[in-house]
Amino acid sequence: MDNLQKLRREYSGKPILDNHGFENPIEFFEQWLTEAINSDCMEPNAMNVATAGIDAKPHSRIVLLKGVEEDTFVFFTHYNSNKGLQLAENPNAALLFYWPELFRQVRIEGSIAKLGTEASENYFKSRPLESRISAVVSPQSKPIPSRKWLEQQWEAIKKSKTEPSRPEEWGGYFLQPESIEFWQGRPNRLHDRILFSKTGKSWTINRLAP
Amino acid sequence: MDNLQKLRREYSGKPILDNHGFENPIEFFEQWLTEAINSDCMEPNAMNVATAGIDAKPHSRIVLLKGVEEDTFVFFTHYNSNKGLQLAENPNAALLFYWPELFRQVRIEGSIAKLGTEASENYFKSRPLESRISAVVSPQSKPIPSRKWLEQQWEAIKKSKTEPSRPEEWGGYFLQPESIEFWQGRPNRLHDRILFSKTGKSWTINRLAP
Repeated sequence: MDNLQKLRREYSGKPILDNHGFENPIEFFEQWLTEAINSDCMEPNAMNVATAGIDAKPHSRIVLLKGVEEDTFVFFTHYNSNKGLQLAENPNAALLFYWPELFRQVRIEGSIAKLGTEASENYFKSRPLESRISAVVSPQSKPIPSRKWLEQQWEAIKKSKTEPSRPEEWGGYFLQPESIEFWQGRPNRLHDRILFSKTGKSWTINRLAP
Repeated sequence: MDNLQKLRREYSGKPILDNHGFENPIEFFEQWLTEAINSDCMEPNAMNVATAGIDAKPHSRIVLLKGVEEDTFVFFTHYNSNKGLQLAENPNAALLFYWPELFRQVRIEGSIAKLGTEASENYFKSRPLESRISAVVSPQSKPIPSRKWLEQQWEAIKKSKTEPSRPEEWGGYFLQPESIEFWQGRPNRLHDRILFSKTGKSWTINRLAP
């Protein structure tokens, strides 16, 4: 495909001023996420989660952010999925939110740890029955024989009317940020990039070249 | 923010059948990318590029795909940007396309190498003047004193009416895929995932559990 070079969109985002008024990037993030939700961005809480095992090979996939709690970023998954196995080897990870409707991205880097059982249990219970059944029947990231095989497992539990309980290997993670960058697309590729880097308990702020 | 748990969208994507008809994931990808372009997805050729230096810390950012050539995925950047420095240490990378309008993502993993000078030169020349000036004046990923500083550099070249030539450290990369996964969101979180893995010159196909 060589027609991609002609796909060209001018980025007309609202500037991030040098004097943007934020000392804390979590508040800055919450403002942007709220604006993404209010601007009807598609799937505003979808984020790319990049992980790497000890072999340093990066992997990434979309996961939904389920909370910003005590300055950490929370999501849920199977601990035995590929990402879970990679995080067990190497807790470093990078999150990326991309809101093309607003010409914005946010890049968050840090290390990840497991949430407590109670928080995982509470969130699991809040999910619709159909999603809970899927969490029980699906050996995430593993090869399966067919679509039909998966649907049969799912239907069997659905018909049995037993309440699916949280698999031990299903639960939450939280990322503690070490850096958060705000990227705002601007005309002529002169984008705004503001990087917050954690040193001790405080944040250092730099504007980066686009 | 705890209201994120209520953001819940049912994924009603078109199924990927077990008998999907593709032996080659590049053709599969080109079909999905074409559908994304034709469906007016926002920025259909935007992809997340995940890299990691030898410290195995993942980093990711959005980059635009500029071509699919000889079964590789092509993009352009500054070789001295953070991603360039990480790729110089460790050529492994992961690309991710996410088209929420179609409930789809594609995950591509492999290793990255630099394009030849001629291809970089040709693409550079095809860019609008304003973007070329930005490539010349912006020390990508490095801290800069202010927005104004950047704009002054840019205006100076613009006013001089000199034709900006490609900086030596600006050019293309291509990723040779070792695996490509197609993810289609489906109701009840029973998503379709089809993984193509390269062994020698052929592709092995597996359906994965969602």
